[in-house]
Amino acid sequence: MAPAYKLIYGDYRGVAETSRFLFKYGGIEFEDARVQFEDWPQWKEKTPFGQLPLLEHNGKQINQSIAIARYLANLVKLAGNDDWENLEIDSIVDTVSDIRQKLVPIGREQDQIRRKTLIDTLIKDSFSYHLPRLEAIVEKNNGYLALGRLTWADFYFATISPMFDAITGQDCLANYPKLKAVRDKVNELPAIKKWIETRPASDF
Amino acid sequence: MAPAYKLIYGDYRGVAETSRFLFKYGGIEFEDARVQFEDWPQWKEKTPFGQLPLLEHNGKQINQSIAIARYLANLVKLAGNDDWENLEIDSIVDTVSDIRQKLVPIGREQDQIRRKTLIDTLIKDSFSYHLPRLEAIVEKNNGYLALGRLTWADFYFATISPMFDAITGQDCLANYPKLKAVRDKVNELPAIKKWIETRPASDF
Repeated sequence: MAPAYKLIYGDYRGVAETSRFLFKYGGIEFEDARVQFEDWPQWKEKTPFGQLPLLEHNGKQINQSIAIARYLANLVKLAGNDDWENLEIDSIVDTVSDIRQKLVPIGREQDQIRRKTLIDTLIKDSFSYHLPRLEAIVEKNNGYLALGRLTWADFYFATISPMFDAITGQDCLANYPKLKAVRDKVNELPAIKKWIETRPASDF
Repeated sequence: MAPAYKLIYGDYRGVAETSRFLFKYGGIEFEDARVQFEDWPQWKEKTPFGQLPLLEHNGKQINQSIAIARYLANLVKLAGNDDWENLEIDSIVDTVSDIRQKLVPIGREQDQIRRKTLIDTLIKDSFSYHLPRLEAIVEKNNGYLALGRLTWADFYFATISPMFDAITGQDCLANYPKLKAVRDKVNELPAIKKWIETRPASDF
């Protein structure tokens, strides 16, 4: 029987990796469908809003990576126990997402000098501002980003923060040992460790 | 007794208006705290991530407008009935939020010629692409953006889409009668109608 879930994305980690981690963590079978770069133009027309990832389930197709991850987090019990707890998680996820959004124009910049300027600004205005604040939150939260326990906020950070390093060419968490420990903690969960060892290789 | 909730934002509608609508819809008393422009620098230091809105409740303070709105939507019964329904709502909300994100660089652009170019690109690449797709969704969903009934996705659209008009100086929904009807339907709910008539005046 085909798996009940199909996750469609490009052939890289990107913003779909949070959901892949959540599937693996929960031991939920899914089809890890990867659209190759050359096939994307013809795929794009068939998507609801010209974007991936998409989650397919029960004949329905849904876009938006964070919305999909939140759904899966509920499924695998990495969400909050009530609406307020979910608010605390969502607040962290959207804060990390705001940082990620700032990477987008850098990824698109072809000119190497302008790219370097954008990276310097990102580090100065965003990383130097946001990362110490997130580090302090982990310090107060028993080594996690929310609720003093493992939640999908940690999964989101563990899968998104590697992009910070990839785009800047630096170890962006070098001065933030507690944030680095959050990432390591997620990466060392047995199901995740196994996934990282066996997943398709990609640059980001 | 002071209200159990305090919503802190600037003295305008912006991204906090969704939450104000949700409070009003649910008849939930809240302190509508508005930081004046000249007081923002000293306020900023006291916020978790240098941003508003903030929701204060039970001695806790949380940032991120969409996360706050989702929490309030659950409180006032405008969320889904299960995790999949919430995914359908979240997917729409984040899609509308993606459009809103594209307004940010236009708001910051001081040069009128460059601003005009950015607006033309926004209309051509985003509005002309996303709005017909959202219009088709409303058509299939009984006149609503999700689940065939009133949800906070409609509230989000009703409060965010006026920014499309404000920033472009155009009636951006002119060709999308079903989307316009969604906005009107929300605005004409008795509690919302009353709020719109009495809320502090602001440009956006």
